[in-house]
Amino acid sequence: MKIRIIIPFRTNVYTEQQLQDARPLAAPDLAIDVVNLEPDPADPLCVFEQGLDEHLIVEKAVQAERDGCDAVFISCFGDPAVDAARGRLQIPVVGGFQPAALTASLVANGWSIVTLRKELFAAIRQLARKLGIESNIASLRGLEMVSVDYGNQKFIEAQLQEQAEQAIDKDGAEAIVLGCTGFCGFARELAQRLAANGRSVPVVEPVAAGIGYLQLLVRSGISHSRTTYGLFGETFRAEANPACAKSA
Amino acid sequence: MKIRIIIPFRTNVYTEQQLQDARPLAAPDLAIDVVNLEPDPADPLCVFEQGLDEHLIVEKAVQAERDGCDAVFISCFGDPAVDAARGRLQIPVVGGFQPAALTASLVANGWSIVTLRKELFAAIRQLARKLGIESNIASLRGLEMVSVDYGNQKFIEAQLQEQAEQAIDKDGAEAIVLGCTGFCGFARELAQRLAANGRSVPVVEPVAAGIGYLQLLVRSGISHSRTTYGLFGETFRAEANPACAKSA
Amino acid sequence: MKIRIIIPFRTNVYTEQQLQDARPLAAPDLAIDVVNLEPDPADPLCVFEQGLDEHLIVEKAVQAERDGCDAVFISCFGDPAVDAARGRLQIPVVGGFQPAALTASLVANGWSIVTLRKELFAAIRQLARKLGIESNIASLRGLEMVSVDYGNQKFIEAQLQEQAEQAIDKDGAEAIVLGCTGFCGFARELAQRLAANGRSVPVVEPVAAGIGYLQLLVRSGISHSRTTYGLFGETFRAEANPACAKSA
Amino acid sequence: MKIRIIIPFRTNVYTEQQLQDARPLAAPDLAIDVVNLEPDPADPLCVFEQGLDEHLIVEKAVQAERDGCDAVFISCFGDPAVDAARGRLQIPVVGGFQPAALTASLVANGWSIVTLRKELFAAIRQLARKLGIESNIASLRGLEMVSVDYGNQKFIEAQLQEQAEQAIDKDGAEAIVLGCTGFCGFARELAQRLAANGRSVPVVEPVAAGIGYLQLLVRSGISHSRTTYGLFGETFRAEANPACAKSA
Amino acid sequence: MKIRIIIPFRTNVYTEQQLQDARPLAAPDLAIDVVNLEPDPADPLCVFEQGLDEHLIVEKAVQAERDGCDAVFISCFGDPAVDAARGRLQIPVVGGFQPAALTASLVANGWSIVTLRKELFAAIRQLARKLGIESNIASLRGLEMVSVDYGNQKFIEAQLQEQAEQAIDKDGAEAIVLGCTGFCGFARELAQRLAANGRSVPVVEPVAAGIGYLQLLVRSGISHSRTTYGLFGETFRAEANPACAKSA
Amino acid sequence: MKIRIIIPFRTNVYTEQQLQDARPLAAPDLAIDVVNLEPDPADPLCVFEQGLDEHLIVEKAVQAERDGCDAVFISCFGDPAVDAARGRLQIPVVGGFQPAALTASLVANGWSIVTLRKELFAAIRQLARKLGIESNIASLRGLEMVSVDYGNQKFIEAQLQEQAEQAIDKDGAEAIVLGCTGFCGFARELAQRLAANGRSVPVVEPVAAGIGYLQLLVRSGISHSRTTYGLFGETFRAEANPACAKSA
Repeated sequence: MKIRIIIPFRTNVYTEQQLQDARPLAAPDLAIDVVNLEPDPADPLCVFEQGLDEHLIVEKAVQAERDGCDAVFISCFGDPAVDAARGRLQIPVVGGFQPAALTASLVANGWSIVTLRKELFAAIRQLARKLGIESNIASLRGLEMVSVDYGNQKFIEAQLQEQAEQAIDKDGAEAIVLGCTGFCGFARELAQRLAANGRSVPVVEPVAAGIGYLQLLVRSGISHSRTTYGLFGETFRAEANPACAKSA
Repeated sequence: MKIRIIIPFRTNVYTEQQLQDARPLAAPDLAIDVVNLEPDPADPLCVFEQGLDEHLIVEKAVQAERDGCDAVFISCFGDPAVDAARGRLQIPVVGGFQPAALTASLVANGWSIVTLRKELFAAIRQLARKLGIESNIASLRGLEMVSVDYGNQKFIEAQLQEQAEQAIDKDGAEAIVLGCTGFCGFARELAQRLAANGRSVPVVEPVAAGIGYLQLLVRSGISHSRTTYGLFGETFRAEANPACAKSA
Repeated sequence: MKIRIIIPFRTNVYTEQQLQDARPLAAPDLAIDVVNLEPDPADPLCVFEQGLDEHLIVEKAVQAERDGCDAVFISCFGDPAVDAARGRLQIPVVGGFQPAALTASLVANGWSIVTLRKELFAAIRQLARKLGIESNIASLRGLEMVSVDYGNQKFIEAQLQEQAEQAIDKDGAEAIVLGCTGFCGFARELAQRLAANGRSVPVVEPVAAGIGYLQLLVRSGISHSRTTYGLFGETFRAEANPACAKSA
Repeated sequence: MKIRIIIPFRTNVYTEQQLQDARPLAAPDLAIDVVNLEPDPADPLCVFEQGLDEHLIVEKAVQAERDGCDAVFISCFGDPAVDAARGRLQIPVVGGFQPAALTASLVANGWSIVTLRKELFAAIRQLARKLGIESNIASLRGLEMVSVDYGNQKFIEAQLQEQAEQAIDKDGAEAIVLGCTGFCGFARELAQRLAANGRSVPVVEPVAAGIGYLQLLVRSGISHSRTTYGLFGETFRAEANPACAKSA
Repeated sequence: MKIRIIIPFRTNVYTEQQLQDARPLAAPDLAIDVVNLEPDPADPLCVFEQGLDEHLIVEKAVQAERDGCDAVFISCFGDPAVDAARGRLQIPVVGGFQPAALTASLVANGWSIVTLRKELFAAIRQLARKLGIESNIASLRGLEMVSVDYGNQKFIEAQLQEQAEQAIDKDGAEAIVLGCTGFCGFARELAQRLAANGRSVPVVEPVAAGIGYLQLLVRSGISHSRTTYGLFGETFRAEANPACAKSA
Repeated sequence: MKIRIIIPFRTNVYTEQQLQDARPLAAPDLAIDVVNLEPDPADPLCVFEQGLDEHLIVEKAVQAERDGCDAVFISCFGDPAVDAARGRLQIPVVGGFQPAALTASLVANGWSIVTLRKELFAAIRQLARKLGIESNIASLRGLEMVSVDYGNQKFIEAQLQEQAEQAIDKDGAEAIVLGCTGFCGFARELAQRLAANGRSVPVVEPVAAGIGYLQLLVRSGISHSRTTYGLFGETFRAEANPACAKSA
C-alpha cells in the first residue's frame, strides 16, 4: 500500500519532518512519501494564499493517483481542496479535520479542539457543520502566541498543555483534538503530561487519524462517494451547451 | 450605489441576459453591471472547472472593489468563491444560495429547492449546513432533463412547475426556492401558475434575493464579519516564519 | 413603494424619533410613515400589556393594507403579532427579530444579541427556535441597568459597548445584533467604537434589517406563504358547524 | 385538587362533552369543571378568530386562579394563549400540545401526530420547535375531510384509523398523538383497532396527557418558571418611563 | 392503582426512606411499595456494579408485573435497565431521568441538572440525546464533595443550593432538575431557599416526576411502545435458526 | 498487534466464519482471534437474551485484556455492552455501529443503513443519537424476510441489493452501511452489483470498519476517554458509605 502526503504550502520546510512523524503510524506493508507545493518563481517567499491555492493542491493529488498511490493525505487541519480533490480522484483523499473529528467522536462524547489561533475558529466550525458532528464539540481553543513564538517548541508545548487543561477543566472536554498537523510530534507527550496531572483523556492527532483512516478505507476497498463528490470534479465544456458554443 | 454581478463562467453567453433580468430588481439609485470570466486561450471551449476556478472569481471580485463598486453578486446558486472573496474584500459579497435560503426562511417555515440536477443535492446540503438553516428545508428536487433540454425554455418551465407542485403536495413545501441563477426569468410566471392551480406559495429567486440583500447591507452600512472571513483572505509569507525563510 | 411602521405601544412618544431613524434607510422611491397604538381612555398611562395587545396591532396592520401600503414593519424586536398579522394580510409583514437574525446569519457564522434586559432571553430563544437559526447564536446578553437609566443615552451607549465587547471576547461573537428597535440610533457609532478598539465586527440593527428586507420582498414581488400563515388568520363561524349553530 | 378546563371558543357546544370526557382521567381527590368563552353579542355566530382571541382566554385563566383552582387546562391542541396565561398566573397552565408531545416522547422514540387538517401543520411544527422536541416527530398527518364531515363520527373514526395506520406503516411512527382535543373520545377504541390490525402502539390523547400532567405538577408542588414566562405577563405603564409620562 | 419502586442497589439501606419520600406524591387511590436488589452472598458489601447489574433489575421488574402492579419506577436518575425492562413488560416502566427531563421541558425553556458528581455528566448527556431534548439543557453541574460528605445532609443541602444558584446566575437556567433520586427530600426546601434569594424557579425532582408520570400513563391507559422497545426484550433460541441448532 | 473478536451469542456457529471474514482486513503485523459466549447449560438452545447478557460480554472483554490483547471488537451492529466494557478496560473496544457510522460520514454526506429487520430501527436510531451523527442518516431499511430465509444466502444477497437500490433511488443515500456484522461477506460483491447498475456508492461494512478503527487507535496510541466511560465501570461497595455498611 502506498500513501502520499501533500503539504499544501509552497515550501519544503515541513516536508522531511512530516515524513519522520508519519512513518511510525504506518503498518509494515505501507509506504509513505511526502511532497509539497512548488514555490512561485514570481514570489518565492509566499508560503500560501488562503482560498486561492486549491487548484495547485488538486494538481498534486491528481499526480498522486497517476503515480499509483492508493490514497492521499492533504496535511492541513483545514481540509483545503479535499472536496475538489475527491471530485477528481477515485482513490481516497482526506485532510486532517475529518479523520480527527470522527476519531474523537468514537473515543469521547464531547471533545475540544486546540488549534493555532482564534482566527481559525470560524472556518473550523464550518468544517464541523459540514461533517454533521458539531454537537460533539465541547469548545474550540487557540494558542495564545505571536509570530515570533512559532519556532519556539517549548513555548508551544506549554501552551498546548495549558489550553488542553482549560478545555478539560472549564469546557468539559472528554478528549483533546490537536487542531494543526504541525502538532504531530507533540501528541504523545501531551497525553502523558495531562495524565500525570490527573487528566487522563485521549489526545487525537490529525496525521495519525488521517493515515489510520486511509488504511481503513484501502483495506476495506472503499473510497468517497461519487454521488457526494462527483460534482466537485466536473468540467463543463461549451460543446455541451449549444448557446455557449456559439458565443465562446 | 453600484453593484457588480460576476458570472463565474468563462463565457459571455449569459452576461447580457443577466443584466436584463437584474435591472428591474434595482432601486432608482442603484447601478448594476455584469462581467464574466475570460475564456482560457489554451482551451476556449471550457466553460468552467468545478473547484478549480475559485481564484479567477476572486480576482474579478477584487477588481470590482478597486473599481469602486459598493457590493458584489457572484451569480451562481452554489456560492462559488464567496468565502474566499469575502476574505479579501471589505465590501459585501453574496452568491445565490445564502440570500435565497434566508429569504425563504422569512416567508415560510419549511421550503423546497428546485435545482437543475440531482447531482447538485450534496453540495447544496453542505451550503445549508454551513448556514445553519438545514432544518428549514422540506426537500431538494431536481429537473429531470438531459443535456439537449438545456436550451428548451418550454421544457424547463414545465419541469419547474411539475417539481414545484410535487414539492408542495408530497414534501410539504410552504415556499419554493429556485436553485439556479439561470432560472431568474421564470420566477414570477411560475408563482402565477402555481397559484392558478391552488398552490399559492412564494417563489424565491436567488438573483432577486441576492440583489435585494446587497442593497439591505449597503443601506445599513454593514458588510461580512472580518472575524468570520478574515482567515479566508490570508497570505502567509516566509518572512513571517524564520524556518520558511531559511528553506525557501 | 410605501411602508408603514407600527409602534406596538399605546403612546406616541417613540413615533417621531422612529420616523427620523428609518428615513435614511429608504431607497429614493420608498415612502415611510409611522403610527402607534392609541392610549386606552380607561387607563391612559398603560403603555402595553404583554400578550394581550396583539389584536390591537393586527387592527393597525389590516388598516395599513387598506391604506394601500406595500409592506408593514412592526417595530419591536419581540415580533409581536407578526404571525397573526401575516394570517390576515397579503402584503409582507415583519418585526425586528427575524430580519435581524437572518441578516446576521449572512454576515457571520455565530453572533450575539445584546438586548434590554435578561428577562427577554427566554422569549428571544423561542423566536430563534421558531426561525430555525438557533444554532447560529453565540450568546444573549442584556444591559445591566434599572428603570431610571432608560432615559440616559450616555449610560445606554456605554452599556451597549461593554456587553458587545464581552460577547466578542468571551462568547466568540463574530457579529452583534441589537436586540431592541429603540437602539436604532446607536448602531453606527457602536460599530465605529468597536472597530476603534480592535473588534471590527458588523452591528446588525433591526429597523435597518426590517426595512431592507421589506424592500427586498416588495421588489421581488413575494410575500409570506399562505400555507405557513393562513391558519393564523382564520375565523370560524357557527354556520360552518351545525352543532355550533344549534347551540350558540 | 381543582382543575378548570377552558374551552377557547365562544360557544358552549363542546362544554358538557368535554366534562364527560375528562372526568374518568381524574384521581379521586380531583374536581374538574369546564368553562367556555362567551359569544360576542355583536356577532353571536363567530366561534373564534385565530390570533385575536388570546386576551379573552387569558381573562378566563386569571379568573380560574381567583376562583381558587389549582391548575388550568386550555382545551386546544394549538396551545392558544398558554404563554400569555403563564405570564399572569402562579398556578400551572397547559394546553393540549406540550403534554401530549412530551408524553409521546416518553413512550416512543419517534411518533406521528394525526390532526384535523393539513393547514395546521405549520403551526404545529412551530410548537414542536419551541418545545425542543422536533426531532422526535416522525410525521404530521391530517384527516382528509370537508366541512360537512365534522359531525360524522363514523367518518372521523375511519379517517383517524387510516391516517394512523399510514403513519405507522409508511412514516415509521412508534406511537400516535391525536392532534385535537376534540378527538378525546376516540383514543382507546383507536388503540384497540390498531392493535387488532397488528399495530400495537400507544395512542396519546391530549386531554388525558394535559390533565395527567397538571396532577403531576400540583402534587409535586411546582409550576412554570417565572424566568421563562415572566415577560409574557408584563404590563408597562408610563409612570415607569418619564418620556412616556410626558407624552401620553 | 399499585406502583412498585425498585431500588437498583444490593442493599436495603435506602428502602424505607424512599417509601416515606414517595407516599405524599400519590393520589388517594394509589398504593406504593418499595423493593431493593438482594445482596450477593459471595460479596455482601458490594452495593452495585455499574453496567453489570441490569439483569437483576429486570428480574425485579418482571416480578412486579407478575405481582399485579400497574407500573414500575426504577429509582435511579441514570435510568438503569429501563430499556431492557420495557422490552419485557407490558406495564409502564420509568426511571428518574426521562420523567424529570420532560417535566422540566414543560415548565421552562432551558434548565440545568444538579447531580452528585462530574463523573456522571457523560452518561447524563447520552440519556438526554436519546430522549431528543438535549437542546433544552442549559448546563450540568455536580456537587463538589468527597466520599465522607455523603452522610452529611447539611453539606449536601448547602452544595445543592450553591450549584443551583450558579446554574441560574451563570448558565441561564430557568428551572433546576435534581439529578439523583436520593435528593428527593431536599426539593421543596431548596425551591423555597432559592425563591427567598430572588431566584424563583421550579425545582423538578425525579421521584415526584416519575410517580406522577406513571399515574398519567396508567390513568390514560397507555404504556411504552412495543415498536420502540420490543427488541430489547427478545430472546433468540437455536430452534429459530437451523445453523445454530446444529452447532449448539 | 493482537485483536480479539467477541461473538456476543451463546453459540460457536458464527465463530469460524467470522475469523475467515476478518483476516483479510488485517495488516501483516496484526493477529486476530475470535471467541463466543458459552451456551447456558440450563438452556443450551438459547442463543441470546437481549438486554440481559451484557455482563457475559463484559467478562469476555475483561479476559481479552488479561490475555494481552491490544483491542477488542464486539461483533454486533447493536454495540451491545460496548459502554460497559469500555468502563472496565484500558484497551480500545468497539462494536459494529460506531466505526461503520463514522466511516460512512467520512465518505458521504448522507447514507442509509440496510439492516436485518424493521424491529431494529428504534435501537439503531438511539445509537445514532448517542454518537451525535443522526443528521447524516438518509434512511433506515430492513430486509423483508422471515425466519426461514436466514440460511438462504441468495435470498439475502438479492434483498440487500433491492433495499440498497431503493435507499439510493428514493431516500437519496450517497453510501450504504450494512447493518449487521453477519453481512460481512456480502459487501464487496454488493458494491460491484450496485456499480454495475449505475449506482456507484461505497458500501461500508461494520467488521471492516471496526477492525480498521481499532488498528487506527492502537497505532495512534489512544483509547476511549476515561472521562466518558469511567462511570460505566464503577463498583460501589458498602465500605464507601457508612450507612450502607451498617445496613448490609
